[in-house]
Amino acid sequence: MRTLINNLKENESTSISGVINKIRDTKYMVFVILKDVSGHIQVSIEKKENAELADKILKVTPGSFVTFTGKMVLSEYVKDGGMEFIPESFKILSLAEVSPIEDNANVDTKMDYRWLDLRSEKNTLIFQIQSYLTRMMREFLYQENFIEIHTPKLIGAASESGSDVFEVKYFDRLAYLAQSPQFYKQMAMAAGFDRIFEVAPAFRAENSNTNRHTTEFTSFDLEFSYIDSYKDVMKMEQEMLKYALAKVKEKYGSIILKEFGKEVIVPTGDFPVIKLSDLYAELHRRYGYNIPKEDVGDLNAETEALAYRYAMEEYNSEFIFITDFSASKRAFYHMRDDSGTPLGYDLIWRGTEITTGAQREHRYDILKKQALEKGLGDDVKFYLEFFKYGCPPHGGFGIGIDRLTMLLLGLTHLREAMFLFRSPNRLNP
Amino acid sequence: MRTLINNLKENESTSISGVINKIRDTKYMVFVILKDVSGHIQVSIEKKENAELADKILKVTPGSFVTFTGKMVLSEYVKDGGMEFIPESFKILSLAEVSPIEDNANVDTKMDYRWLDLRSEKNTLIFQIQSYLTRMMREFLYQENFIEIHTPKLIGAASESGSDVFEVKYFDRLAYLAQSPQFYKQMAMAAGFDRIFEVAPAFRAENSNTNRHTTEFTSFDLEFSYIDSYKDVMKMEQEMLKYALAKVKEKYGSIILKEFGKEVIVPTGDFPVIKLSDLYAELHRRYGYNIPKEDVGDLNAETEALAYRYAMEEYNSEFIFITDFSASKRAFYHMRDDSGTPLGYDLIWRGTEITTGAQREHRYDILKKQALEKGLGDDVKFYLEFFKYGCPPHGGFGIGIDRLTMLLLGLTHLREAMFLFRSPNRLNP
Repeated sequence: MRTLINNLKENESTSISGVINKIRDTKYMVFVILKDVSGHIQVSIEKKENAELADKILKVTPGSFVTFTGKMVLSEYVKDGGMEFIPESFKILSLAEVSPIEDNANVDTKMDYRWLDLRSEKNTLIFQIQSYLTRMMREFLYQENFIEIHTPKLIGAASESGSDVFEVKYFDRLAYLAQSPQFYKQMAMAAGFDRIFEVAPAFRAENSNTNRHTTEFTSFDLEFSYIDSYKDVMKMEQEMLKYALAKVKEKYGSIILKEFGKEVIVPTGDFPVIKLSDLYAELHRRYGYNIPKEDVGDLNAETEALAYRYAMEEYNSEFIFITDFSASKRAFYHMRDDSGTPLGYDLIWRGTEITTGAQREHRYDILKKQALEKGLGDDVKFYLEFFKYGCPPHGGFGIGIDRLTMLLLGLTHLREAMFLFRSPNRLNP
Repeated sequence: MRTLINNLKENESTSISGVINKIRDTKYMVFVILKDVSGHIQVSIEKKENAELADKILKVTPGSFVTFTGKMVLSEYVKDGGMEFIPESFKILSLAEVSPIEDNANVDTKMDYRWLDLRSEKNTLIFQIQSYLTRMMREFLYQENFIEIHTPKLIGAASESGSDVFEVKYFDRLAYLAQSPQFYKQMAMAAGFDRIFEVAPAFRAENSNTNRHTTEFTSFDLEFSYIDSYKDVMKMEQEMLKYALAKVKEKYGSIILKEFGKEVIVPTGDFPVIKLSDLYAELHRRYGYNIPKEDVGDLNAETEALAYRYAMEEYNSEFIFITDFSASKRAFYHMRDDSGTPLGYDLIWRGTEITTGAQREHRYDILKKQALEKGLGDDVKFYLEFFKYGCPPHGGFGIGIDRLTMLLLGLTHLREAMFLFRSPNRLNP
């Protein structure tokens, strides 16, 4: 009978299993810090009374996995809640070689031995929280009558947007890795699936090394039909995030504050919305910021950071929607209004863009025209077919759950929010 | 205000939106069959009273998406529950070109226009049920303290088993597409993550075209630590399937019976277990079946079918676990007992293998030896490292959710259970 450390009850005979963080040998006592997925505890062995057990444990290397059988007792001498475990016996499950990484190891070494790096309570917590966040986003969508589908990542044509795609040798021809499920999400709309989402890897062959780029990430994408405007899409995203953040706060709010120094703030009411040109004007007026010519019609990292500052100052909101981008900076499949302005938005959270969303162009002739204007021809031919035989009005968005986790916990690099990071220079382990 | 067809209430003014399945022009009436994601309804227009509306609807092509505003009424003249919709007005959302596929189109044409094929109520239902089945498998695992992780599909080494892997051009080197998350699931165990699962695409570069193979499928994989034996793994899988099937039966049991002619049977008690050699003996004794020499130590399609027959006759069970395979037929990472027999199993459901599960070898030296025996060297070197610095005993299994859906609904080909099928000859749409 194994008990998780955070479920231990005083004086109850049981076993605990986990990894040894530290062993400390003192005159009268041996102290072991044992960690499992739920937390850690001090295991205390009196040398005199338990000579054999003490001897045996002193030969075990940190990093080894063991099971202790005994009892948890409360003690005023122990920090961290005053619990210690008094073992009667223990068993080695797996004896470790001496760890190749130290606490002060450099980033590359830590990435090389990622599984050891992940053993820290903080790192383990990141993935427990990420799992819960995604689960709650799903839960919200199920309540809204969405179903989850699984679209292929191996695709026959090279794609959708400017980002480079990876080539795959596919028997006697080439295939490509999907950069996003965009085309297939929309295919589901033409199929009458009404409301769908997908959580799956997305691949980007961009040769850039920044703190928020990767060649493979986990994308949370949704699409739904019979919308009246892209405002329905904004509303859906807003409500999903509010729901998920409230749930995360409830379960992990205090530990996130303690371990990461970040408060989980659950927005109330609607997120503020501003047109891009109005944002430029505000940023100029307030902070003397002028957008560089090449970025006009779009956001850049500095604009995102300042938009956040503006949203906090003006609305006390961590989130802000920005609309009315330039058509030249947006994908061809965004629907446009009569003046040619795309009917979509970006969402900024804590100074970083987390989403692009839009109503999609579902009218075959217009869509085809917009594709040709962007110089897209044969590669999107199969996609254009989806709209020939009827397709309801629809819209959607995508959100990277790694990036979302990074921002939630205030991590400085995307790789911290990824089980295993992938970049142009990093393909292992 | 839009209402889903199956939520319509008598005499309530509202709108319904969907795709037109059929338009029938009679002397006094125009009848339209409108379908949405929840079902279909007859829309009835009296020509005399609504001349303009009738004229307009007769110009709309089947396949078009429209919105009708009006009321549902009950009528003794209408089949299918006696509901019909009396519209006051309608609006074309998207006018379809004439559909390129007929009901009797051949399989390839249907696959080429998959989004039109998916519009049938039966096909839509397949993916609603698949989403729910997966959701309920997840729900069970959350209750069992599992978290979901996301492991990379781009990997640096060519990998794990005999199946061929796809090569990816990764900047100035090669990467490979993961055939399964096996190695990384186990990495999570070495990281002390305790209990994890993942639902993600898996890629197989096998040049075979059968009714149950594909080059890309959705794999549901889990791994958990501190097990005493592979029997703990069998138990976990059994309980997960019982839970999910019970939930599916509750929500979709009657419609599955009606649309697919299959009863959802929720197993009670433990699934029967038989050793492979005992199974051979039973199949010989009962059905005169002799396993071909080249398959001894393993299953083949015929053995799987007969094992099901045996399980039904002897135990009235649709499921049967088979254990004690030959080490030569199993992956090197399966733990073996003192006699060299792998400590794993296959699970057969309705005549088809749905899972291979096992306790894994977590002891570095033995694992390395077993890898070398299979002729695996450099490709698994990075993987062997996971076990050097401590790793708890653990086990797990993988299950293809497409195959599971196929068997649940009695479909004849895997492609029917996949949103978009991928095979050596099929990479589009």
